[in-house]
Amino acid sequence: MPTNLVLISGVLSKRELRYTPKGTPVLEVSLIGKRAVGENHLFSRADLTFYGKLAEHWADQLADGQAYQAMGRLVYESWEADGVKGSRLRIVGEELFKLENADVREEEKGPVLYGAMNRVILSGGLTADPEIRQTSLKTPVARASLGFSSWDASAGQARSHYIELEAWRDLAVQFADLKKGSQVLLEGSLKTEVWEDKESKAKRYKRLLEVERVTPLARIRSAERSPEEPPMVKGNKVKTKTKAA
Amino acid sequence: MPTNLVLISGVLSKRELRYTPKGTPVLEVSLIGKRAVGENHLFSRADLTFYGKLAEHWADQLADGQAYQAMGRLVYESWEADGVKGSRLRIVGEELFKLENADVREEEKGPVLYGAMNRVILSGGLTADPEIRQTSLKTPVARASLGFSSWDASAGQARSHYIELEAWRDLAVQFADLKKGSQVLLEGSLKTEVWEDKESKAKRYKRLLEVERVTPLARIRSAERSPEEPPMVKGNKVKTKTKAA
Repeated sequence: MPTNLVLISGVLSKRELRYTPKGTPVLEVSLIGKRAVGENHLFSRADLTFYGKLAEHWADQLADGQAYQAMGRLVYESWEADGVKGSRLRIVGEELFKLENADVREEEKGPVLYGAMNRVILSGGLTADPEIRQTSLKTPVARASLGFSSWDASAGQARSHYIELEAWRDLAVQFADLKKGSQVLLEGSLKTEVWEDKESKAKRYKRLLEVERVTPLARIRSAERSPEEPPMVKGNKVKTKTKAA
Repeated sequence: MPTNLVLISGVLSKRELRYTPKGTPVLEVSLIGKRAVGENHLFSRADLTFYGKLAEHWADQLADGQAYQAMGRLVYESWEADGVKGSRLRIVGEELFKLENADVREEEKGPVLYGAMNRVILSGGLTADPEIRQTSLKTPVARASLGFSSWDASAGQARSHYIELEAWRDLAVQFADLKKGSQVLLEGSLKTEVWEDKESKAKRYKRLLEVERVTPLARIRSAERSPEEPPMVKGNKVKTKTKAA
């Protein structure tokens, strides 16, 4: 299965238990933390979804202001209702623990976990050529999007997922060598972009992955075979004829 | 499912395809690399096992001296044959890619990948109290072992796994606060210890995890309930009676 791991920690600021029409418990949790990036502390708020009986059990036990560690994976959902298309990138939690010896500090807006974790490790392929531009201060920034897959055991088929990527400085420059279809192993952190819809004035949210390390990969294929050649017969390699120039 | 991710890269130095009695293809691969730790380059050789049709296909395509990236998980196997017990910790590969732009250098013993990856992220519980001691140079070192589980879909039950842990310096000191049963999220790298069996003079190998980050966790349980109390009835909390001292 493709690599898809999310590690998030933070102070609990919201929990909500609901049930699907089929009766599956769904627990929504928000974790709030700050993590050190150089000399700054970056604020992050992550919403996670847990499914099943364990989620129902946890819903009773979770305490506001307590710090938790969650492990999970990214899941892309899209739908169409009344002709309008929607999509959402969920963090589906698989494990949830209380954090021991957590550095929780009271701040103006409430308690925050310092030294919080916000890490994603993900493999997949770029869905388009990356766009590289420079900010007004000449800082290079790359935008790209990654397609990745998962195995849906209940449906017996693979499912496709997408996430938008952002890479800054040296990392942006590394994206210049990549193109549509390039395979990569990424490490980074989740970030939420917020903006106001011009028409409805409603707040819009988009989750994206800020890339902190990119490893360019290539699929393993037959080295000798080019698309024009006939397929190799097992145990009977077809010799490539070289035309005289 | 518990977190269990292994990321390994290196130059291919061995590949071997065999079949189980039931006909499942099994591909064994060794990857050789060096990774920067401070100013040193630590050598690492990792053996990985891939199962299934894809493994059979890859066996034909892999090239000695080429650098590869593998993603997988740790699997503990134990057996008893003729009254002798054996065990082994396998890295079971799930993905395998060629590395693009790899820094492969020719060295005396053959090609080596520089800047290789050797990373493990694993959650579980300590199987015993950690042992903390000091080397002759007063460097603290902790030894412990971690039990972790996986879901065996074909058997329809959970499987138990074990790995030995080693932690140095400040990390060793952090283990002093942990005890048997402590839950942790670990990040580290795989290391192979080699020694000679005193009786048979045969070389023995043991794989262990050198811990680079430890996050102490606690299971989420009912805060109010002690083992002596009756279980809570849903929607009808049992009030704890406090005896006067």
